[in-house]
Amino acid sequence: MLKPLGDRVVLKAQENEEQTVGGIVLASNAKDKPTTGEVVAVGEGRMLDNGTKVPVSVKKGDKVLFDKYAGNEVEYEGQKYLVVHEKDLVAVLD
Amino acid sequence: MLKPLGDRVVLKAQENEEQTVGGIVLASNAKDKPTTGEVVAVGEGRMLDNGTKVPVSVKKGDKVLFDKYAGNEVEYEGQKYLVVHEKDLVAVLD
Amino acid sequence: MLKPLGDRVVLKAQENEEQTVGGIVLASNAKDKPTTGEVVAVGEGRMLDNGTKVPVSVKKGDKVLFDKYAGNEVEYEGQKYLVVHEKDLVAVLD
Amino acid sequence: MLKPLGDRVVLKAQENEEQTVGGIVLASNAKDKPTTGEVVAVGEGRMLDNGTKVPVSVKKGDKVLFDKYAGNEVEYEGQKYLVVHEKDLVAVLD
Amino acid sequence: MLKPLGDRVVLKAQENEEQTVGGIVLASNAKDKPTTGEVVAVGEGRMLDNGTKVPVSVKKGDKVLFDKYAGNEVEYEGQKYLVVHEKDLVAVLD
Amino acid sequence: MLKPLGDRVVLKAQENEEQTVGGIVLASNAKDKPTTGEVVAVGEGRMLDNGTKVPVSVKKGDKVLFDKYAGNEVEYEGQKYLVVHEKDLVAVLD
Amino acid sequence: MLKPLGDRVVLKAQENEEQTVGGIVLASNAKDKPTTGEVVAVGEGRMLDNGTKVPVSVKKGDKVLFDKYAGNEVEYEGQKYLVVHEKDLVAVLD
Repeated sequence: MLKPLGDRVVLKAQENEEQTVGGIVLASNAKDKPTTGEVVAVGEGRMLDNGTKVPVSVKKGDKVLFDKYAGNEVEYEGQKYLVVHEKDLVAVLD
Repeated sequence: MLKPLGDRVVLKAQENEEQTVGGIVLASNAKDKPTTGEVVAVGEGRMLDNGTKVPVSVKKGDKVLFDKYAGNEVEYEGQKYLVVHEKDLVAVLD
Repeated sequence: MLKPLGDRVVLKAQENEEQTVGGIVLASNAKDKPTTGEVVAVGEGRMLDNGTKVPVSVKKGDKVLFDKYAGNEVEYEGQKYLVVHEKDLVAVLD
Repeated sequence: MLKPLGDRVVLKAQENEEQTVGGIVLASNAKDKPTTGEVVAVGEGRMLDNGTKVPVSVKKGDKVLFDKYAGNEVEYEGQKYLVVHEKDLVAVLD
Repeated sequence: MLKPLGDRVVLKAQENEEQTVGGIVLASNAKDKPTTGEVVAVGEGRMLDNGTKVPVSVKKGDKVLFDKYAGNEVEYEGQKYLVVHEKDLVAVLD
Repeated sequence: MLKPLGDRVVLKAQENEEQTVGGIVLASNAKDKPTTGEVVAVGEGRMLDNGTKVPVSVKKGDKVLFDKYAGNEVEYEGQKYLVVHEKDLVAVLD
Repeated sequence: MLKPLGDRVVLKAQENEEQTVGGIVLASNAKDKPTTGEVVAVGEGRMLDNGTKVPVSVKKGDKVLFDKYAGNEVEYEGQKYLVVHEKDLVAVLD
């Protein structure tokens, strides 16, 4: 099993199809389009300067939007994952 | 539903028309012109270093000015949103 | 009404005329010349790391010098304003 | 013996084979692929600003993913090691 | 009157003559030569993160050395001033 | 005698021979190879924000690995030394 | 008299002669060679975030090594001085 460290979160990513016109990627005003994923595992959280550990605010099974350029791609037992820091998660989809 | 994380705010953005003369965008002295939006959802707020959570200072329905270059564009159930950090909100329009 | 957020201040700016010789702007030793404005509205202030809110040190009606390259230009009900952070205010003119 | 200082961790690294097509390394969307290693020794941990020492969250023998571009390569008694900071460890493999 | 904000100090600057040889400015090993000024007004000081206000360590009338590239030039009632942050003051001349 | 200040450490450095093939230095994947040295003197340590002084974690006589690009070279009484900050020490060799 | 502010230190600098071969300065592996000086005056020290003032760790008369590229050159009553921050002092020569 993959146990992320610190405030990291393991995601099964589901990248959005790029919107293209005639094969050209549209940059849409220099803003990053986040992509969607499902939380597979969460770390123990980050530690504040006073020593308190703050648990990660998402949980296994949550569907999340995350920042497109964040994280490390990982391949584990034939499956691809993305490991991101909690701060790179943008929103939860209910 | 889109539930923003941390101190993020989901906006239905309403971009200002660019002021142009003969089709040329006027840069107006290198200052960013913020644009207008309506708050759709707010996160739980940011956490201070001492562990206290500070609620976001705007609420659903507020009309706000936000920094033009901030945030992530999101498309959710056919509607476009913008997710920005609270610090990128400039003012509330009463 | 425009209600600035955090430690922001709304100004009715009154830009100094550029000093020019024969139409050429004089850079005057690479130092920024601040410009003058009147405070129209102030935010609730910034929050310290210990959770205390520090009120903005200027008030409505104050005439202030501000850093020329700071802030966001805003047009609201036909009037142009400048929204700056408190730290970009240089001095109060008594 | 190699005793890492602070929050450093000594790893026996096991670099992933680069995925290449006809000898050309595939960049795979500008994301770093972490590589795998085994923890050989850990430092005493990092010190918080309040003076508390926080032990490293991995232990000798743990198999870990680490950020590909992190750390110092060390050769010690004929064996190559990698010394990384704890923050560069991405996940533990159970 | 000019009332500087925060830890700012208003100076009547007295720039040193550049040392030149045959009209060429001598750079003297890439170090900044501070210049001399007289303190005209001081702000209330800077606020520490714990909310304490620290008064400025110079007072009206002090002759000071300041960092040449610091501050904002201000013209007020026909007189030129320089507004600098306290940290840009190098020394007091007794 | 050389008494290093703060968290600095004076080392008698012993630079590794560069690995070369036909006189060409091998960069070995853009990672810094630390080099070896012996601790000659240590400073009193660094001060935390709460005013506590933290002693340096190595002592005179320790053999250490240090970051190749760190520190100031010093020549003192005909002997060359390297003065580095404690954070630039990677590991102690037992 | 020159009274340095904050954690600054006034030095009578004694620059090392550059080591040259045939008039060409030898860069010696991109490391800064500090130079030697004598402490002439010290400031009151720096203030910690909790409001405590930390006295400067050197005193008048100390012979010190300092970082070559640090500080402001000052000419005062016909004598050249260097004003540096305490952190730019590398070691005391006993």
